[in-house]
Amino acid sequence: MIKTREQLQEFISTIGPVDLSIAAEVERLHGQLTKPDGSLGRLEAIGAQIAAIKGNTRPEWEKKCAIVMVADHGVAAEGVSAYPQSVTIQMLSNFSLGGAAINVFARCVGCRLRIVDVGTNSTDESNLSIKYRRVSCGTQNILYGPAMTIYQALTAIGIGIETFLEEHKLGIDIFATGDMGIANTTASSAITAVTCNRNPSEVTGPGSGLNKEGLQKKIKVIEHALQVNLPDRNDPIDILRKVGGFEIGAIAGTILAAAAHRVPIILDGFISGAAALIATSLAPQCRNYLIAAHLSTEPGHGTILESLGLRPLLNLDLRLGEGTGALLAMPIIEAACRVLSEMATFESAKISQKLS
Amino acid sequence: MIKTREQLQEFISTIGPVDLSIAAEVERLHGQLTKPDGSLGRLEAIGAQIAAIKGNTRPEWEKKCAIVMVADHGVAAEGVSAYPQSVTIQMLSNFSLGGAAINVFARCVGCRLRIVDVGTNSTDESNLSIKYRRVSCGTQNILYGPAMTIYQALTAIGIGIETFLEEHKLGIDIFATGDMGIANTTASSAITAVTCNRNPSEVTGPGSGLNKEGLQKKIKVIEHALQVNLPDRNDPIDILRKVGGFEIGAIAGTILAAAAHRVPIILDGFISGAAALIATSLAPQCRNYLIAAHLSTEPGHGTILESLGLRPLLNLDLRLGEGTGALLAMPIIEAACRVLSEMATFESAKISQKLS
Repeated sequence: MIKTREQLQEFISTIGPVDLSIAAEVERLHGQLTKPDGSLGRLEAIGAQIAAIKGNTRPEWEKKCAIVMVADHGVAAEGVSAYPQSVTIQMLSNFSLGGAAINVFARCVGCRLRIVDVGTNSTDESNLSIKYRRVSCGTQNILYGPAMTIYQALTAIGIGIETFLEEHKLGIDIFATGDMGIANTTASSAITAVTCNRNPSEVTGPGSGLNKEGLQKKIKVIEHALQVNLPDRNDPIDILRKVGGFEIGAIAGTILAAAAHRVPIILDGFISGAAALIATSLAPQCRNYLIAAHLSTEPGHGTILESLGLRPLLNLDLRLGEGTGALLAMPIIEAACRVLSEMATFESAKISQKLS
Repeated sequence: MIKTREQLQEFISTIGPVDLSIAAEVERLHGQLTKPDGSLGRLEAIGAQIAAIKGNTRPEWEKKCAIVMVADHGVAAEGVSAYPQSVTIQMLSNFSLGGAAINVFARCVGCRLRIVDVGTNSTDESNLSIKYRRVSCGTQNILYGPAMTIYQALTAIGIGIETFLEEHKLGIDIFATGDMGIANTTASSAITAVTCNRNPSEVTGPGSGLNKEGLQKKIKVIEHALQVNLPDRNDPIDILRKVGGFEIGAIAGTILAAAAHRVPIILDGFISGAAALIATSLAPQCRNYLIAAHLSTEPGHGTILESLGLRPLLNLDLRLGEGTGALLAMPIIEAACRVLSEMATFESAKISQKLS
């Protein structure tokens, strides 16, 4: 259980570097497989990265797990979302019944799905397929003060770490992040603006579908919230506490824990990206464990990926969240791994090498 | 069996339009599913296209089939490939043993794979897992005359049609194209240059890995072959016969047959693209049945997709062929279909609608 900054630092110190000698070995192996060298393009780089993360030239890929962190945001009261706050809890129920996009995609790619309520605006804990770990019943409205206390920010990260560790005991070869929470693009834009040193208007978009007026209002709310809270851009915990969200902290925790256990992390869209900003500010060595699944249409997402130095695998105009983009990228990542363990070599298949 | 232009025209006349009213119905359905409208981006357009092709708002997706057409090219004698011609037959053996990239990806996505020898430089027919339908033992060298006779060009297309029909009897919900043949990027660049009215230097790339000198030589060979053969850009059969290949004709045949049977076609990379130029020149109504899987690094591929008005789903720097790009796109297409049949609606899940 993480309760202090010191405990968090102690956990972070367990995150080691990836094994670059393994990446070099995989590059050599790719040249021996029965295909023109380099012809699998980005799959070859992904294969090398995953091998370096796991320290194994033939990385395992079977056990896939996505964790969807769900929470509410006090700032929803300002009308910054196209949907009412009640939709967060309604979607939680939809997740548990298997009717949301993330459920469909998890079935498509054979991925275990864990849904965690880290702070919805409810006290109900009756749904057996949801894991309840509420830090509080939604954050405070950032227009008037911090979203949460420092203790709550550390708790949210700690819940992310613990949830990952529980799932890791069941086996995780590849991990995907996910989120749900009405108004969480507002928190993510605020985090992005502070961390990447941008104006809110540059990194704020329509989220789930605001019109032009709604978007202008949302930008004003973020600008005002940053003036009221003055988050310290050199202190990720301060940013998370002042303008973040419980699910964003919890996702950051899963990223830290996955890196500590050398599990490749498929990063979903904008909200997961904001969480990755927090996680990599806390622990820069996390960066090499991240694979950006896709580029969202939310304008702040491109800013985040650029800042993290990540090139997205997919560009499908998605803006749904939940982990949907991460799961759509999962089969490409599986393919990149299986190439390494299942393809024949020129020698084993008795195929002539390149002429010159 | 197709033996004359008239028989081909008769078959082509059976290809009907896609059902645009179904596409409109799917757009309405997408607005009712539990996600912000439009938030699944390109998956929504793909879902609508497949529904329009099949005439069904909840299209089937289970039965996936890829057909890999394999043949040799006389022009390989000019040193236009980084690999010797013998690699075509060696890779055929690799396909049959399951060691090639296409085998790995077929296992990844649960796709039936059919390997067809439509004209390798061999007389062996002993491999039981390969279907032998050789038009001839490789094409003639296009530097000195036509690659094949008109009869052979029609036969190659006919073999494609027949092969698809045989596979269709076993069930195909989604079809993927694929190719193998040393020197077939030379033939594809020649087809692209003629059909899209470009200089060979604009649409010719290093293929399986030529160096700069090799690429310059390849461009000169194509320029010379076009001068020798003078293909008629308004006659796709003339282009196929003079500078094409047996596998390219056969892939064009599978495209025609899939469209005739209202099966969505996932188009692999550059070689499949050249075949699509032939197929859509013969039957423009094929165009709406095509989904471009990815953008290859071969420069001519972008030219083809632009000419066909297709936006690639993936951009992963692939240049392997075999159908590998098509199979990597398959899970995204499956997901687009399953969204339509498996997601809850706002009404069924009792979720609040958008505020305004």
